[in-house]
Amino acid sequence: MPVITLLTDFGDRDGFVGTMKGVILSINPSARIIDIAHDIPSGDIHTGAFVLSRSYSYFPENTIHVVVIDPGVGTKRRALCVHAGAQYFVGPDNGVLKWIFKDNPDAKVVELTQQNYFLSTISHTFHGRDIFAPVAAYLSSGIAIGNFGHAVQDYVKGTWPKYIVSAKKISGEIIHVDRFGNLISNIAAKDFKLHEFEYIKLPGHSINKINNSYDRMPVNQAAAIIGSHGFVEIAVKNNSAAQMLNYSKGTTIELYLKG
Amino acid sequence: MPVITLLTDFGDRDGFVGTMKGVILSINPSARIIDIAHDIPSGDIHTGAFVLSRSYSYFPENTIHVVVIDPGVGTKRRALCVHAGAQYFVGPDNGVLKWIFKDNPDAKVVELTQQNYFLSTISHTFHGRDIFAPVAAYLSSGIAIGNFGHAVQDYVKGTWPKYIVSAKKISGEIIHVDRFGNLISNIAAKDFKLHEFEYIKLPGHSINKINNSYDRMPVNQAAAIIGSHGFVEIAVKNNSAAQMLNYSKGTTIELYLKG
Amino acid sequence: MPVITLLTDFGDRDGFVGTMKGVILSINPSARIIDIAHDIPSGDIHTGAFVLSRSYSYFPENTIHVVVIDPGVGTKRRALCVHAGAQYFVGPDNGVLKWIFKDNPDAKVVELTQQNYFLSTISHTFHGRDIFAPVAAYLSSGIAIGNFGHAVQDYVKGTWPKYIVSAKKISGEIIHVDRFGNLISNIAAKDFKLHEFEYIKLPGHSINKINNSYDRMPVNQAAAIIGSHGFVEIAVKNNSAAQMLNYSKGTTIELYLKG
Repeated sequence: MPVITLLTDFGDRDGFVGTMKGVILSINPSARIIDIAHDIPSGDIHTGAFVLSRSYSYFPENTIHVVVIDPGVGTKRRALCVHAGAQYFVGPDNGVLKWIFKDNPDAKVVELTQQNYFLSTISHTFHGRDIFAPVAAYLSSGIAIGNFGHAVQDYVKGTWPKYIVSAKKISGEIIHVDRFGNLISNIAAKDFKLHEFEYIKLPGHSINKINNSYDRMPVNQAAAIIGSHGFVEIAVKNNSAAQMLNYSKGTTIELYLKG
Repeated sequence: MPVITLLTDFGDRDGFVGTMKGVILSINPSARIIDIAHDIPSGDIHTGAFVLSRSYSYFPENTIHVVVIDPGVGTKRRALCVHAGAQYFVGPDNGVLKWIFKDNPDAKVVELTQQNYFLSTISHTFHGRDIFAPVAAYLSSGIAIGNFGHAVQDYVKGTWPKYIVSAKKISGEIIHVDRFGNLISNIAAKDFKLHEFEYIKLPGHSINKINNSYDRMPVNQAAAIIGSHGFVEIAVKNNSAAQMLNYSKGTTIELYLKG
Repeated sequence: MPVITLLTDFGDRDGFVGTMKGVILSINPSARIIDIAHDIPSGDIHTGAFVLSRSYSYFPENTIHVVVIDPGVGTKRRALCVHAGAQYFVGPDNGVLKWIFKDNPDAKVVELTQQNYFLSTISHTFHGRDIFAPVAAYLSSGIAIGNFGHAVQDYVKGTWPKYIVSAKKISGEIIHVDRFGNLISNIAAKDFKLHEFEYIKLPGHSINKINNSYDRMPVNQAAAIIGSHGFVEIAVKNNSAAQMLNYSKGTTIELYLKG
């Protein structure tokens, strides 16, 4: 039973996600449909790309990930099907797959052009239903990726946040704020040794310790931790760091290393 | 594997939807359960009816749609099972199925009276769990619709928004506001020709162009588009039309046609 | 096909739940995954425990419930697998399973120590992914509970709200506020006879009637009802009792009985 995942900014009020599931099951009744997340902020390609990047590798081989954060729906932006890391990805060519391409430089990327695998009527505003869901369903039915269109090379690799590593300092950004208000940076744990950690600087704030659990943090003080994504996070015990410190995505973060 | 969909106003905080799924799987372990939407505003029968109407036709034949937006739970309002358009619908007799009845004038409608297909204890406040979920599960197990009760004719067909078509003007209403803040009207694309479009009038606002993608709209200006539902929508590029214009469900919209 | 349910405070924005599903399907591709609720308030162990207690008994035998409301993740708090009432429960030892233990005093409780059933890397902050999901998947694959670790007796039974029954009065608390704003108390319907009901006292408010449907309540007045959980609830017809009355979890409620 092939697994098809859905990751969108459609929320849970309008039936958009349910409709996509109906389309998939009408084409391949044996597909297994799994939700990754649907409350991505409207049109926020970077957040969608990040959430996909942190989830996909935990799925079985041949999983098909359908990613619909698509503010350019109805324009000439391309629709893609990608084979990368023994999995498949279906979505718009707008950067939402940028981490997949970074992790898998040898990805096979196909532009979706074969309309016989789309719904018969294509709307201007809902390609999740009309193009991406049916292509994923046909893919899960055994149609090979090459049948959906032609290979392309000049797909959108996406833009990246600031990230500068030097001997004494790693400069990065807050790239995600999770439900708990934790501020996730793009400073990777693997890029420095814990015993070299000196302090972290955020605008108007510095943090001089890295903790290894939320619970052991001082109460109501911002603290750093290596989060589950493998990145340095700023958190506040039992509270939202984002709200308490008033930082958001894009805030600069600097991690200083001992001599 | 029969498909059972769930559409409710139960949200994702209380376990109401999870409990219904447990009831279904306890009766028919092979049922496939698919969520359509659960964040319908509390008790908003019209929105539930609209979301169902835009989703159901994308599902396979014999799908069973369980619809629980049920502010009258515990009163004498009837519980229904409906066979229409080669699919099934289970829910309260309060208008939430009005679009199904409109699309399918020959629907077979049965009042649920056979308590052997309900849970053994019926609460006053949660018929989704006690009546609708078990009936859907038994239906998916192969029990024929006639076994659940007797046919009725005087079910609630529902009330409808204003909709007047004349030679020079179509008058309608905003009938739904989606997650993106798009204002969806009940003026159907099929009821006029695009080249006849002259302008749209909303209270204190007029729009003189129909676009064919969100992205091509002027920035921060309300614009019209034929949406994925087949209706005229009012949208603002990368923004919420509902918030910017302060319109909501029920607002009158007039579309003027060229001579 | 074994059923695995998920109940968390992870929301639908970060892909945490989707990632857990990927882990489960990578270990047991035939597992059936069902969501109970994911919008439990962050770190609110009592609400998670309550929602689980009202849902689990509706699921089939051998269902595996994974419960991740885990503010102490990364500390020495234990991870548990429990066999109780012919079902299984996997989660942190922090009280989130307290109702399960109360309902099933003979529960078999195992501390999860066998790391060969965890992911190979264990983060400090996401044991849902690294420990609880893989253990549930292995359990669903037929691994017996004793293989995951050793039996423990001194697990967290949890704290309980006030509940005092006397001849003339039952004193309790508001223990849950649902999506509709209904205030659910811990005064059980089975602990008094309806004809003995005299009145309910809340701080600054008294209610002298128990209704048997939301719809029959007086408009815009707080009223009592026996809710679907089997407890006395305070509700307001078509409105939020929690907002109108400004009560919340922990508010004292007294139900007076006739002589």
